[in-house]
Amino acid sequence: MTQPLDPIACAQALIRCESVTPVDGGALDTLQEMLGRLGFSCTRLPFQEDGSERVDNLYAERRGPAPNVCFAGHTDVVPVGDPADWSVPPFAGEVVDGALIGRGAVDMKGAIAAWVAAVSRIPLEAGTLSLLITGDEEGPSVNGTRKVLDWLADQGITLGCCVVGEPTSGVRLGDTVKIGRRGSLNATVTVYGTQGHTAYPQHADNPVHRLAAALNDLAYEPFDQGTEHFEPTGLQVTSVDVGNPATNVIPAQATAKLNVRFNDLWDSAAIERWIQERLDRHCPRNELSMRVSGESFLCAPGPLSDALVGACTEVLGAPPELGTGGGTSDARFIKDACPVAELGLKNATAHQVDEHTRVDELYRLTDVYEAALRRLLDGI
Amino acid sequence: MTQPLDPIACAQALIRCESVTPVDGGALDTLQEMLGRLGFSCTRLPFQEDGSERVDNLYAERRGPAPNVCFAGHTDVVPVGDPADWSVPPFAGEVVDGALIGRGAVDMKGAIAAWVAAVSRIPLEAGTLSLLITGDEEGPSVNGTRKVLDWLADQGITLGCCVVGEPTSGVRLGDTVKIGRRGSLNATVTVYGTQGHTAYPQHADNPVHRLAAALNDLAYEPFDQGTEHFEPTGLQVTSVDVGNPATNVIPAQATAKLNVRFNDLWDSAAIERWIQERLDRHCPRNELSMRVSGESFLCAPGPLSDALVGACTEVLGAPPELGTGGGTSDARFIKDACPVAELGLKNATAHQVDEHTRVDELYRLTDVYEAALRRLLDGI
Repeated sequence: MTQPLDPIACAQALIRCESVTPVDGGALDTLQEMLGRLGFSCTRLPFQEDGSERVDNLYAERRGPAPNVCFAGHTDVVPVGDPADWSVPPFAGEVVDGALIGRGAVDMKGAIAAWVAAVSRIPLEAGTLSLLITGDEEGPSVNGTRKVLDWLADQGITLGCCVVGEPTSGVRLGDTVKIGRRGSLNATVTVYGTQGHTAYPQHADNPVHRLAAALNDLAYEPFDQGTEHFEPTGLQVTSVDVGNPATNVIPAQATAKLNVRFNDLWDSAAIERWIQERLDRHCPRNELSMRVSGESFLCAPGPLSDALVGACTEVLGAPPELGTGGGTSDARFIKDACPVAELGLKNATAHQVDEHTRVDELYRLTDVYEAALRRLLDGI
Repeated sequence: MTQPLDPIACAQALIRCESVTPVDGGALDTLQEMLGRLGFSCTRLPFQEDGSERVDNLYAERRGPAPNVCFAGHTDVVPVGDPADWSVPPFAGEVVDGALIGRGAVDMKGAIAAWVAAVSRIPLEAGTLSLLITGDEEGPSVNGTRKVLDWLADQGITLGCCVVGEPTSGVRLGDTVKIGRRGSLNATVTVYGTQGHTAYPQHADNPVHRLAAALNDLAYEPFDQGTEHFEPTGLQVTSVDVGNPATNVIPAQATAKLNVRFNDLWDSAAIERWIQERLDRHCPRNELSMRVSGESFLCAPGPLSDALVGACTEVLGAPPELGTGGGTSDARFIKDACPVAELGLKNATAHQVDEHTRVDELYRLTDVYEAALRRLLDGI
């Protein structure tokens, strides 16, 4: 057993490092120093792919009996905008009226600090603990978690399970544990017709009419009714552009842009077929191009989510929901290595001016993480 | 009876005046000189509304027993484009291989020449003949026929009927007499929604989806099945524009542009209600603005169209169809003054490079006009 750390002091130390992606600002050194005192062996893993920014990462491990319970997170933060808009300097880590204010307070230096403080309460012999911390989550995510996981595989290091510290809580601390994420893709549709005079439409073929019919189907035909842990798949038409200035001319082509968020009933290839089928119904000449941001995934409820649900219920008095909403996180890479689930602070102020967490909630999250660790080290 | 005029020579004299709207180029003087020799009294009627180009017009009348049989036309022509694209100079009035080539040959100096030549074969005592010739038909049509008709009304001059010399013939000379025209209007539709993140559509209201549903109804719901003399009313969506560059943002508004060509079952107010109803079905917050180019009209078949049909049948051996297709002409103004019908040369090369009429067809049209005049002066 080591000397327990204070999560507020840890979070302040991390916030005071100006680590806007891809800059590290001393954040990993600060974290490594804390973990070293807790008995962790630390390996720094800088990666740089051709043409991308070099990003530093950290894998820290304190070896004990198997399994390896991992915490994954990121020390990089999004830009602060105009610092003058903040009520305190965004990298000062000040506590005002019981709230710790600063960029990264909830996303996610606060959660890292809570995990480290929780670990400081766990005896060395309880099990193997590790942290996978990247400086490239808010950026392109090319030289971060994905590459660290490859390195772990090369080293023969396997993870038993992984908790990601993203701010998953909504209205109330600990009201949501995320066990998967929707997939997301963007598509561009171009429909071709035959130009002509509006007075003689029989000699033309209006691509705008065809596109309107296809978009009407795409926008209003349901994909599914949702699944146990996912909302229904949804499609949004974000733009339609023809740019025809002539009121008496039927244009030759029309373009639309689509964004699809899809659940675990679909993969991007199935979504593409679904869109293509509705285009083909109305538009004999069309082109569809797609860019996939991420596939959907679900880590089916099991010992990991049970431990997080149990810890929240024990510490906070109410069970969390198991959710899959919101944007993407590095959990999409980790799910291929081991069971993964996400639990963190309230997300209301993430990425905003005056990002903050209540101090008492940071202590409560530390308690939840500690309770979860005890369950995980016992149980899996 | 005066000395009969040659329609080819008359047409050549008119084509040699470079009368691209709003320039007259001596065209009205040339015509006035011909008509003076045929016993017409000519009145020049220049008009200029605030901010518009001054345009000259001509009302010529040869008084005899009532009624007043009028011919309406225009000496202005559309631009020639690059003269180098023409096989002969566009204002030379050259005859090549039996075809009279030049800007205005069919639209509509050729028809004016044919009418004047037909009149030259009609005895003075046969009836009252008049010509209403404008230099502002191909342009804004503000200082032309409409103002001459106002002037006629002020003078207490009434027209018995009016033949307009627009090139109405399609495949074969004299295959179509037009007895009305479709109406035309342009509309701009703006649909409002609520901006939001594509990952959380429940907090937004996508105006593109609403617009697609409305456009689908507007484009595919038939207005009518057409009427005895009109094609079905038709709507074309000419543009849709959102201009949203962000793939993860649901936009706040979307705009579409529509063109409607409508038959005698509708007026522009009824079309507006029809569009508004379909917008309101899907788009609670919308704005519709309209610009009416012209209302639809029909001059019901009667003595005037009977005379033109009889003349075509007698001279050409086959009856014309009574049609209402194509774009607008000054007949839309004249229909409020007296029965009006349109008959002229083949329209295939109107407004094109190497606009031309066959010389023999110009002679045939002269014969048709003469036969029509004899019937009209006898009959109405």
